[in-house]
Amino acid sequence: MARPITFLSDYGLEDDFVGVCHAVIARIAPDARVIDLAHGLERHDIRTAALVLRRSLPFCAPGVHLAVVDPGVGTARRAIALRTTEEDRVLVGPDNGLLSLAAQRFGGIADVVDLTRSPHRLQPVSATFHGRDIFAPVAAALAAGATFAEAGDPIDPDEVARADVPLAFVDGDELYAHAVAFDRFGNVMLDVEHAELTGSGFRLGQGVEVNGRGGVYATTFSDVAPGELLLYEDAYRTLALAVNRGSARELLHVARDDELRIRPR
Amino acid sequence: MARPITFLSDYGLEDDFVGVCHAVIARIAPDARVIDLAHGLERHDIRTAALVLRRSLPFCAPGVHLAVVDPGVGTARRAIALRTTEEDRVLVGPDNGLLSLAAQRFGGIADVVDLTRSPHRLQPVSATFHGRDIFAPVAAALAAGATFAEAGDPIDPDEVARADVPLAFVDGDELYAHAVAFDRFGNVMLDVEHAELTGSGFRLGQGVEVNGRGGVYATTFSDVAPGELLLYEDAYRTLALAVNRGSARELLHVARDDELRIRPR
Amino acid sequence: MARPITFLSDYGLEDDFVGVCHAVIARIAPDARVIDLAHGLERHDIRTAALVLRRSLPFCAPGVHLAVVDPGVGTARRAIALRTTEEDRVLVGPDNGLLSLAAQRFGGIADVVDLTRSPHRLQPVSATFHGRDIFAPVAAALAAGATFAEAGDPIDPDEVARADVPLAFVDGDELYAHAVAFDRFGNVMLDVEHAELTGSGFRLGQGVEVNGRGGVYATTFSDVAPGELLLYEDAYRTLALAVNRGSARELLHVARDDELRIRPR
Repeated sequence: MARPITFLSDYGLEDDFVGVCHAVIARIAPDARVIDLAHGLERHDIRTAALVLRRSLPFCAPGVHLAVVDPGVGTARRAIALRTTEEDRVLVGPDNGLLSLAAQRFGGIADVVDLTRSPHRLQPVSATFHGRDIFAPVAAALAAGATFAEAGDPIDPDEVARADVPLAFVDGDELYAHAVAFDRFGNVMLDVEHAELTGSGFRLGQGVEVNGRGGVYATTFSDVAPGELLLYEDAYRTLALAVNRGSARELLHVARDDELRIRPR
Repeated sequence: MARPITFLSDYGLEDDFVGVCHAVIARIAPDARVIDLAHGLERHDIRTAALVLRRSLPFCAPGVHLAVVDPGVGTARRAIALRTTEEDRVLVGPDNGLLSLAAQRFGGIADVVDLTRSPHRLQPVSATFHGRDIFAPVAAALAAGATFAEAGDPIDPDEVARADVPLAFVDGDELYAHAVAFDRFGNVMLDVEHAELTGSGFRLGQGVEVNGRGGVYATTFSDVAPGELLLYEDAYRTLALAVNRGSARELLHVARDDELRIRPR
Repeated sequence: MARPITFLSDYGLEDDFVGVCHAVIARIAPDARVIDLAHGLERHDIRTAALVLRRSLPFCAPGVHLAVVDPGVGTARRAIALRTTEEDRVLVGPDNGLLSLAAQRFGGIADVVDLTRSPHRLQPVSATFHGRDIFAPVAAALAAGATFAEAGDPIDPDEVARADVPLAFVDGDELYAHAVAFDRFGNVMLDVEHAELTGSGFRLGQGVEVNGRGGVYATTFSDVAPGELLLYEDAYRTLALAVNRGSARELLHVARDDELRIRPR
């Protein structure tokens, strides 16, 4: 029985890129279940894709996790497959930081191989479509039972690229967080996960101040009046900012990586 | 063998919402076939989604039908699963009218359960993503063979919310219909199904008057000249208005729920 | 075991068209694997869809290939299924040229049947949704093992409509090519495939002139400076024109079918 495959990319669904990768997978692993995690992510936005992969994989059965956001296709960046320390998950994609945040969530990287000359790649390998020619066929072969070690040449886990994400920190009663991603509603995802607030001075229902602007630490949008700012845990238990029926991104004039100073009031 | 699952939502395909629901389903019911009915419906438009569900389910094998258009997520609205009187279909979604028009098509509701404390939900249940935490896992469990009665707490079928759809009526030779939904081409779907025209004074090829404006009761767009109005049965045998290479919605200045007076001429 | 099915259309993913076709297929061939090749192609653009089908099918396992781009639905155009001379592929769709370029790639058409009165169609057949009522159920029946000859009435392969694509030709050192399709980045696909350049005077890394404008025959975008024109083989080994971080379509003011005169310099 083949392992399940998840597939995330920035290919979009207008063209046949995603479909052809599915076709390649089906040829090599006709029994593997393939789940499309997302293909409409912003083009070339490695970091947001890395965050989406990190937060969604815990909801996916362990298996082969294919991810392709690859602005450097055709350059010297490596193609890799890695195995996580926990849960025996296999992640396949470009070595540009895309896989790093998800790997970290499962205890880090146990082994990595460079896929540039993988025996499973389709030949000739094109200069612009490694999703079809390298990543999809390798993911399919691994799902169908191919040995991890034979999928490529071993490299040092410490050499794998990491996504460049700022780090939140707490100073007394103040939280210094960063805007790491936005969604299309103007909600602002912060770099603070649930566990990090445990034991802090923040209490649900309490007032907060974000860069000097008042808001409420609430459970959901409807807990505050329209136009009001809220700090909340999103569905992935990550701290976020929103405005009920509005855009926190606009209200706070915040750009990616901007630091936000948050305190109870 | 697991029952097939259909899945309809307004989540869109830009983000990972749909993908994560698929991942949750695959973990619980790895053998279930999942068919995406539509995910690009207008956000929060319960009624159009209810109409789409009603007209598409007869083309789907009986099974578990998951539907999530849920502007009230996180409020007191219930989460439900219901069983239809005919064909033993199971519908899973929020109790906001979304499921009501489809249920009616299969003889109405035989049983309903409240899923708020379903043993199949993922815990903790988030405030904003019940698709992932309640609806998808319950649908998957039911498809994989879980007992309907044990999926939640029984409630009275009469308490289930109904979609608010106006009703057409015939007065002599006149038909009073309503605009219930629009598509992106400006076609206007009416609240009149095929059977209701049987025995009426409307004949194919005949002239009609719609709010005083002339048109033709025709089979398809190309039966009339460009710019001309036609009354026709759409692919679901529901009466609709269109303009060949134009927009009936604009020509008639019609908004949702507006009444249209239609008569032969 | 059912044969795999690929599915390409211009239905888009906003509405339930694609989903309902999947539901119809699943009812008739519950074991068939269905791969969505692309559904976001430009509406009614038969030729681009025919080219996409031609270039993607070699990556798909032989099976049943369903394609629906059908501006003439409801008119006298035929619905057909054809069998290719090589690889025993079955193509199903409207007889408007959509299937012709792909069939040609597999040795041409061995047999064709007219599906207008196919025993596998859903009845009543609507005037506007033959994807659901004819093409999907016939494709599913063929994938599930129905006999090709019994799917419809035999017609002469020479009567099948062909896509209207211009033909490139070489005159000494000059290549007369045509713009056959564009993608959303402004890249221009030409009517010249890999094999046709073999033995020509074009060498990688060399300068070229396109309609009098200078460029380079290169491997990938990053081989030239931003704003510079390149002639390259795309991921399907078809010759194309691009501007690094720009639009070749705009730079060259080229419209579909325009001839481009290309020579080494």
